[in-house]
Amino acid sequence: MKRKIYLSNTSLSKAQEIFWNAALKKEPGVEEIAVFEAAGRVTAEPVFARLSSPHYHAAAMDGIAVKSSDTFGATATTPLRLRLEENAFYIDTGGSLPPGCDAVIMIEDVFFPDKERPDVIEIREPAAPWQHVRSIGEDIVATEMILPSYHRLRPFDLGALLNGGIFKLNVLRKPRVSLIPTGSELIEPPGEPQPGQIIESNSHVFSAAVREWGAQPKRFPIIRDDSDRLEEVLLKAAEESDLILISAGSSAGRKDFTVKVLDKLGEVLIHGVAIKPGKPVILAMIGSIPVVGLPGYPVAAYVALELFVKPFLYRWQKQTPPKRTVLKSYSSRRVLSSLKEEEYLRLKMGKVEDKFVATPLPRGSGVSMSLVRADGVTTISQNKEGIEPGEEIQVELWRARVEIENTIVCLGSHDLSLDILSDHLKKRYDYTLSSAHLGSMGGIMALKRGETHLAGIHLLDEESGLYNIPYLKRYLPEMELVLVHLAQRELGLMLEKKNRGKITSIEDLAGGNIVFVNRQKGAGTRLYLDFMLKRKGISPADITGYEREEYNHLSVAAAVKAGSADAGLGIRAAAEALGLEFVPLARESYELAVPVSFYNSPKCGALLEVIGSDAFRKAVERMGGYDLTRSGEIVWRSHSDNS
Amino acid sequence: MKRKIYLSNTSLSKAQEIFWNAALKKEPGVEEIAVFEAAGRVTAEPVFARLSSPHYHAAAMDGIAVKSSDTFGATATTPLRLRLEENAFYIDTGGSLPPGCDAVIMIEDVFFPDKERPDVIEIREPAAPWQHVRSIGEDIVATEMILPSYHRLRPFDLGALLNGGIFKLNVLRKPRVSLIPTGSELIEPPGEPQPGQIIESNSHVFSAAVREWGAQPKRFPIIRDDSDRLEEVLLKAAEESDLILISAGSSAGRKDFTVKVLDKLGEVLIHGVAIKPGKPVILAMIGSIPVVGLPGYPVAAYVALELFVKPFLYRWQKQTPPKRTVLKSYSSRRVLSSLKEEEYLRLKMGKVEDKFVATPLPRGSGVSMSLVRADGVTTISQNKEGIEPGEEIQVELWRARVEIENTIVCLGSHDLSLDILSDHLKKRYDYTLSSAHLGSMGGIMALKRGETHLAGIHLLDEESGLYNIPYLKRYLPEMELVLVHLAQRELGLMLEKKNRGKITSIEDLAGGNIVFVNRQKGAGTRLYLDFMLKRKGISPADITGYEREEYNHLSVAAAVKAGSADAGLGIRAAAEALGLEFVPLARESYELAVPVSFYNSPKCGALLEVIGSDAFRKAVERMGGYDLTRSGEIVWRSHSDNS
Repeated sequence: MKRKIYLSNTSLSKAQEIFWNAALKKEPGVEEIAVFEAAGRVTAEPVFARLSSPHYHAAAMDGIAVKSSDTFGATATTPLRLRLEENAFYIDTGGSLPPGCDAVIMIEDVFFPDKERPDVIEIREPAAPWQHVRSIGEDIVATEMILPSYHRLRPFDLGALLNGGIFKLNVLRKPRVSLIPTGSELIEPPGEPQPGQIIESNSHVFSAAVREWGAQPKRFPIIRDDSDRLEEVLLKAAEESDLILISAGSSAGRKDFTVKVLDKLGEVLIHGVAIKPGKPVILAMIGSIPVVGLPGYPVAAYVALELFVKPFLYRWQKQTPPKRTVLKSYSSRRVLSSLKEEEYLRLKMGKVEDKFVATPLPRGSGVSMSLVRADGVTTISQNKEGIEPGEEIQVELWRARVEIENTIVCLGSHDLSLDILSDHLKKRYDYTLSSAHLGSMGGIMALKRGETHLAGIHLLDEESGLYNIPYLKRYLPEMELVLVHLAQRELGLMLEKKNRGKITSIEDLAGGNIVFVNRQKGAGTRLYLDFMLKRKGISPADITGYEREEYNHLSVAAAVKAGSADAGLGIRAAAEALGLEFVPLARESYELAVPVSFYNSPKCGALLEVIGSDAFRKAVERMGGYDLTRSGEIVWRSHSDNS
Repeated sequence: MKRKIYLSNTSLSKAQEIFWNAALKKEPGVEEIAVFEAAGRVTAEPVFARLSSPHYHAAAMDGIAVKSSDTFGATATTPLRLRLEENAFYIDTGGSLPPGCDAVIMIEDVFFPDKERPDVIEIREPAAPWQHVRSIGEDIVATEMILPSYHRLRPFDLGALLNGGIFKLNVLRKPRVSLIPTGSELIEPPGEPQPGQIIESNSHVFSAAVREWGAQPKRFPIIRDDSDRLEEVLLKAAEESDLILISAGSSAGRKDFTVKVLDKLGEVLIHGVAIKPGKPVILAMIGSIPVVGLPGYPVAAYVALELFVKPFLYRWQKQTPPKRTVLKSYSSRRVLSSLKEEEYLRLKMGKVEDKFVATPLPRGSGVSMSLVRADGVTTISQNKEGIEPGEEIQVELWRARVEIENTIVCLGSHDLSLDILSDHLKKRYDYTLSSAHLGSMGGIMALKRGETHLAGIHLLDEESGLYNIPYLKRYLPEMELVLVHLAQRELGLMLEKKNRGKITSIEDLAGGNIVFVNRQKGAGTRLYLDFMLKRKGISPADITGYEREEYNHLSVAAAVKAGSADAGLGIRAAAEALGLEFVPLARESYELAVPVSFYNSPKCGALLEVIGSDAFRKAVERMGGYDLTRSGEIVWRSHSDNS
């Protein structure tokens, strides 16, 4: 079976250079459009004014138009009289000066000396030539250049063009981008996918993205794994496009024939770039039309889109690609990175005390939520082995800096109520709650390192049977803290409905017949399990699947739901969300550990207000398994007791 | 005549506060749209996943699906055999794992021990459970929150929604903005305005701007000065809008009845804000619908739009208004500002050596080109009397910082060829040439203060009869400079065609019968005039209009064309552009004085290449009166001669 295609490892800058050189040779097209429709478009040539603005001598004030030389000699003691409609003329702002006039006297400075003679006016100082007059061309002189070539039109540019008598202009045609989704496993949305089927989403992302970058997308229907059909569609697309994007099939697998088809129809410039995610990208030309073969995984596809398609489209339109703000930040975790590629790491950000802290998001190229949740991206260069915790990194921001400054960071245990809290907070304040799931102990360590505003924890102390307080005393003895109760929640075993009655206790997990799915080390739920196993004298080795770790309640529930495990430990709300059977084992306190410095901030004030609101309580309790009677209560303050 | 309406002087922050409080009470509307169309829209509620992604256990690699427990014990020395379609199954990336399988072995690690038996495979290491498998919910777990409320959708958000099985969602309805242009002097574009008539442009600027800010504009036809009609249209607009913008009529003049109409139909919150330009703004409510009356002058209107309408629209959509980058810069000139208002000063920017230099643009609220040319804006607060030359100021950037860094600043004399040069440079390089017109002496002083990259000068030395070099030696003795020839141009008198033959020399200007229009002090053309007057023994007092100053050749030509002057001094190209008679008096050298430090930069290299290009020479010579035979020649270097 011949299925190995060589994937090169060309560096990003080299690949980009090769691509620009080949792809940007052709001059962009030009079209004439009305000025009204031109916002956001790019001038194809300089635009010269046809009319001056003003195109006549215009009064800049409401008043009386005069010939200035008629007014010389007027003073407060020797006022001068003029006659309306003879040598003085009422004029409104914007009005055209009557012939012979060269100045305007403001209406406030005009007096009527004789009540019987409303046509006689008096002035008490002379008018300087051209006073209160907008002379011809003050704004724009006919023939002057209003806009140069290759200028992207902003709203007020349209105003200047209209003022200069320009109603139509030549602009660069929008680059036409053909989007070709490929793969027999894809189904068109809306639609209900069967196992092995995937909803085609990438081309819709590409479509929205290239539109944002000034292009006109055209999406083709999904092409099944059929190289003849792909060939046919590519030839058609090449006739009507300035760029072709092929989604998926760019890798080197059995069904990845895109590169072969491109090689047949044109020239493959690059197959494989040393970036991660995004490595299996194809850069090719069909005649003078550039083609980018994008990976099928959504994150890989998007990274390649940003690195190749976005700059191409800006350059095609003769514009400098916009740069995102770069912010100095500190990584909250260690990240190991391959020396084979440059890695684009998505990050959650927050400003804790005076520094910006960045927490890496899941790195899989299939995790589209890592794009959704990202506040920014950092690049780990090819010759770097990774990032140390606390290391200074440069982050390209995906959200406005002010939004990140308005983010409340909550690292620690996962609870579904945090999502609800985040939503309610955002609805009522300009603040965002950003939670990353490190487990309760992870949250405590993040507090210790000053990487989070607060930590969500639920830690049962083996000796005292108390929740949370003993851990804070033990691990954060120096820190001034407030412990705020968020919720009581039910913890228990999640099972498929069919296993109801078969598993009723922790003891039933042992023995090898039941496949379990566990939580990660440091999670409060994991600590509870270990505590119970110890108490009951059960060895972890007796539990099949003990070593399989998931990072939150919903993922455990999903594993059970999918039948890849028979049971997992988690909260009732997660079980109910996925329609699983739930065997309650304990009620635990999920609480927020908040340093006093943050507790006294307006941000925390807003958060506590939302926690105490009826709307939030009701929304959480609706999920099932939650008791919010005491939510918002201060459970404990450090340094205020000596117990 | 009762025409005084009180214009208040409310501070900006107070006016904004009053407006937000009244205008943002109403909740925004909601509509359901397809995910495909949702980019840029704002979620009205949290969006929860309907499906997990993946929604089945998916192979993450091309290879063989197996049950991991079947593979335990395999090593390089004790390989293990499996049978295809029995306990090993071909699978492609993305494929669904067959029932019972929980791992994938990469195809590279699969061996075929027996050529006769293609169904028998061999493996040489065990598969770990879940290796190379994307398990259900790895990306998204059904029921999890994909997006919170009030989230503006980005392209990749659409991907995550589709992956989570969401095809439609509720978003905030776009705010509907009615635009009502008013004024009997307005004509609809396209159209040829007569004196006293103005092309209506503001509403088109508003339309493009509010669209950029997420709104749906609707423009009404122009309303003549007719308060009944305005009333009628306002009532109609109030029924179908979330915001109404009235263009012009917001001031306190004879025809400014907008405020009276609004007072009748609803409540006027504010009339007059302490900002410049933009003071005569009206903020009002008709029932629950906010109305902004914007000034008629384009700059005033745009400033008010940015300060009131933009933040309103963002807040209506529950978004934080974006902030522009703020850059520390240094003013190149003195600016005096009133203590009555906060002033928004438009600026041209450039990076000279290591600092950003800002040059104020014309401040008139009717100069729409000051918006077009602006690189940024600085605010002079109400309690500040102005800005000193060299003073540090904070500039809000209107262009990307990188574009400003790529700008070549040329302060000094005005020449039409600079516009052509700017256009050709932009077409061929990522550089922009920004020229502000200070006159030749202004350019030399700007070089001295380090505020410009180069200066365009044409200065005739009275004693030697030489151009430029004597001035550079006299005023910039310490500076290492290169003087580059740009063009020889014809200088002469510009007249209306009908005055042909009546004015043939400088002498003809004296005596009082001829109205002259002059250039500003420090302009090379002004110096030439003064030189000639002195030589011929004519006193400036003998020339009518000597004191009327215009800032560039085209403005002088425009004044002559409009009949407000009989003659002016300028270059042939300006006369030809406006169809004037031209009486040549001299040929002068227009040259560029370039500090050596800048001369050696890549930016200057690009500029010189364009200056030397045939395309540029031909384009300039086409204007008439130019000789570019020597363009690009180095005329002189300081410190290289001792003459």
